[in-house]
Amino acid sequence: MLQAPGWFFEDTPSDSGRSLAVEVTRKLVEQQSQFQKIEIYDTESVGRMLVLDNIIQLTESDEFAYHEMFVHVPMNAHPAPESALVIGGGDGGILRELNRYASLRRIDICEIDDDVIQLSKQYLPFTACGFDDPRVSVHVADGAEFARNSPGAYDLILVDSTDPIGPAEVLFQRPFFETLSKALKPGGVVVTQCMAIYLHLNMIRNLIDAIRPLFARMQYMNVLVPTYPAGVIGLMVCSSGPDFSKPIRPLDPAIARNLKYYTPAIHSGAFALPRFAEQAIAAAGE
Amino acid sequence: MLQAPGWFFEDTPSDSGRSLAVEVTRKLVEQQSQFQKIEIYDTESVGRMLVLDNIIQLTESDEFAYHEMFVHVPMNAHPAPESALVIGGGDGGILRELNRYASLRRIDICEIDDDVIQLSKQYLPFTACGFDDPRVSVHVADGAEFARNSPGAYDLILVDSTDPIGPAEVLFQRPFFETLSKALKPGGVVVTQCMAIYLHLNMIRNLIDAIRPLFARMQYMNVLVPTYPAGVIGLMVCSSGPDFSKPIRPLDPAIARNLKYYTPAIHSGAFALPRFAEQAIAAAGE
Repeated sequence: MLQAPGWFFEDTPSDSGRSLAVEVTRKLVEQQSQFQKIEIYDTESVGRMLVLDNIIQLTESDEFAYHEMFVHVPMNAHPAPESALVIGGGDGGILRELNRYASLRRIDICEIDDDVIQLSKQYLPFTACGFDDPRVSVHVADGAEFARNSPGAYDLILVDSTDPIGPAEVLFQRPFFETLSKALKPGGVVVTQCMAIYLHLNMIRNLIDAIRPLFARMQYMNVLVPTYPAGVIGLMVCSSGPDFSKPIRPLDPAIARNLKYYTPAIHSGAFALPRFAEQAIAAAGE
Repeated sequence: MLQAPGWFFEDTPSDSGRSLAVEVTRKLVEQQSQFQKIEIYDTESVGRMLVLDNIIQLTESDEFAYHEMFVHVPMNAHPAPESALVIGGGDGGILRELNRYASLRRIDICEIDDDVIQLSKQYLPFTACGFDDPRVSVHVADGAEFARNSPGAYDLILVDSTDPIGPAEVLFQRPFFETLSKALKPGGVVVTQCMAIYLHLNMIRNLIDAIRPLFARMQYMNVLVPTYPAGVIGLMVCSSGPDFSKPIRPLDPAIARNLKYYTPAIHSGAFALPRFAEQAIAAAGE
């Protein structure tokens, strides 16, 4: 493994032979939780940075891209969303974006690792502010089990997981998606973190093949996040059929003015995939 | 500067505090030309890799994205392109894409560094095959001077430059763009490599401000290239007014089947910018 004083080197098993190096000014946290190694750094180039098991989870400089697209795409393509479940997402960034919508009456989060929540509240106020809304209920538990006990409960289920190695492996397998499909209200939608087209196309295709019988439509979008491997991350949108690739209502201007990434145009644009990925993914998911 | 045996560390002055590390299996070339240090490596993770002055210029794994978008966007939005000039681009990748169009009668390339051309022909056959077409005329010269001597000559001018440090600095300044605007035929278009929105937004905005009087419209698009800093690179499209953000004719199926990135949908999608960039760029360029 690469090492140099004052530098963090990302070590991603799914992207061997490449590593993003980030110069760090201070290590604020290094802690082994029940599930994973948690590190938090200060850096000049990307601001504060959360690392789980040596993989960058978010940085202050670009987390907005991921969290905004995770939320504002389904919120602006679902006809009347009232309830949302976040699985994972213990940093609070997805909650922060959900909280912008007065129409949501119920916002649940189920994060397996309470240490992530507590350390985020202490060190990542820019995302952990998402926990402050009184509509948010926090459940420290296994996400699959929680969803199994909530049949027909949610308009949106947002799975903000780590990569499919270690604790999150089950979150990329068919039984979990079967549970999610049953936890949706009619017309509901599941959005999941789904890797990078340049690095994990086979894995993405295999996942789509495995869960195809569960959803009438699967759509894949790309989000530009410079500190993720290959600089891009995909989100997969699984639904009973409606087209989530276009907004169905104008974006609330009071929400728009607080955003840095999402626009109605980038909502649609994000679903336009490079030809090599379109052939592998979009065709499989339609 | 970071060092470790068997690894190449990118050293980008415009992106300090971050570095992409790539494990290399063999160094094929290290040569100081009249203009720059040229290195070529073999790697497992990104294939063969061309490096100029310690900055990755292209890798076998993802050069198609950059070269396809550079060419197929203007070629499918210009009403009747017959002549093209490439400035820089000595690896041949842009030529390869231009050559796919039978409608082009004249394809000139003006590259200042003959060593880049010769080494590309020797080591990068996947891009240097672009030199094989009999329509291609190679000029080893200063691009600005070459364009100055070609008034009203081109439908397309494609500036495939290195970053605005060292020899390419003048390619990001107003006098050069003034020359380019005069080298266009009526209705013609200039496309230039234009950095990354996450890293160089001020520079992009300053460039747009400086050249705004020269072009009726400037439009900016993003291309996913994992081995460029931040994983994305922008191309700026400068024209006398027509909208280049949408294709105006169906893509020739005989061309489409050889492409890995470009599609009509990603043509449009690439111009949808994150809100923070749209506000800085699109507004300035319209």
